[in-house]
Amino acid sequence: MKNQQGFVLWLTGLSGAGKTTTGKAIYEKLKQKGYKIELLDGDKIRENLTQDLGFSKKDRNENIKRVSFVAGLLSNHQIGVIACFISPYKKQRQMARNFCKNFVEIHINTPLNICEKRDIKGLYEKARKGEIQKFTGIDDPYEEPKKPDLVLDGSKKEKIKQNSKIVIDFLKEKKYI
Amino acid sequence: MKNQQGFVLWLTGLSGAGKTTTGKAIYEKLKQKGYKIELLDGDKIRENLTQDLGFSKKDRNENIKRVSFVAGLLSNHQIGVIACFISPYKKQRQMARNFCKNFVEIHINTPLNICEKRDIKGLYEKARKGEIQKFTGIDDPYEEPKKPDLVLDGSKKEKIKQNSKIVIDFLKEKKYI
Repeated sequence: MKNQQGFVLWLTGLSGAGKTTTGKAIYEKLKQKGYKIELLDGDKIRENLTQDLGFSKKDRNENIKRVSFVAGLLSNHQIGVIACFISPYKKQRQMARNFCKNFVEIHINTPLNICEKRDIKGLYEKARKGEIQKFTGIDDPYEEPKKPDLVLDGSKKEKIKQNSKIVIDFLKEKKYI
Repeated sequence: MKNQQGFVLWLTGLSGAGKTTTGKAIYEKLKQKGYKIELLDGDKIRENLTQDLGFSKKDRNENIKRVSFVAGLLSNHQIGVIACFISPYKKQRQMARNFCKNFVEIHINTPLNICEKRDIKGLYEKARKGEIQKFTGIDDPYEEPKKPDLVLDGSKKEKIKQNSKIVIDFLKEKKYI
């Protein structure tokens, strides 16, 4: 195993922005290189940790609190964590930072119209029809990070490799890996 | 850092049996020796992960599921976890085992009358008065482990050092440390 510090790559952005796709690409690259990495995304966390939670502000905050606590535990034990969550509110991301060691806020910046056109899970359509309430970007705000550690353009799939490289270079620069 | 495998020491027993006291003693000993160890107990977990949960069977199961998931993540990354939870039902402990790497079920075996006499948090008194419902050992069952990996006598405080040694010898025997 390679020498590394614990860190948390916190990928924030709209639904469909490409957070999990980007996160998985970074995960694969770092695993390949022999680092200890854990990927936390909505699916894994919902099944095991937050099944009870909905989309109210209170529930969203609780969701991020639980994830941050787990990311914090792992990062304190020299594990690199990649966390992919919409985390739309500034205060949530601040809370996450407080739990974690070497927190890196990464904004996966993809315009709403592109996310909506992708609509992989059909959620935007449901939100537009009013079948889902409080959907980020539609009838609930996404508070854009003002000073994220990194901004990645998530609008083009071809850029994923390049984006992974930007993140890995950042980790090296910070001497986290 | 020393060479080690991930493992989970799962300390089960009545409220007041001495789970956290024993867990802390093992934690200190292993930390001192340079191992990567995380202690998960009710207080830490309730604040960060399970604030919403009460003492119904459903809530108790959910509680153990979340803790087991976290213990599983840590143990899969070569961290030693010490988890101190009443975990009164056999099925819960089986679920925990399924989540974790190198799961060691340890029954902190202290007779109910001794736990009740200690009553450090005053919970037994409240349970006897009916102010708390579904309290393990009083009006909710504790299903004793039939084949735990270890049984420790928690009735005497003087035995804590000796009990820690038993656990650490077990970890060595299993080559987890």
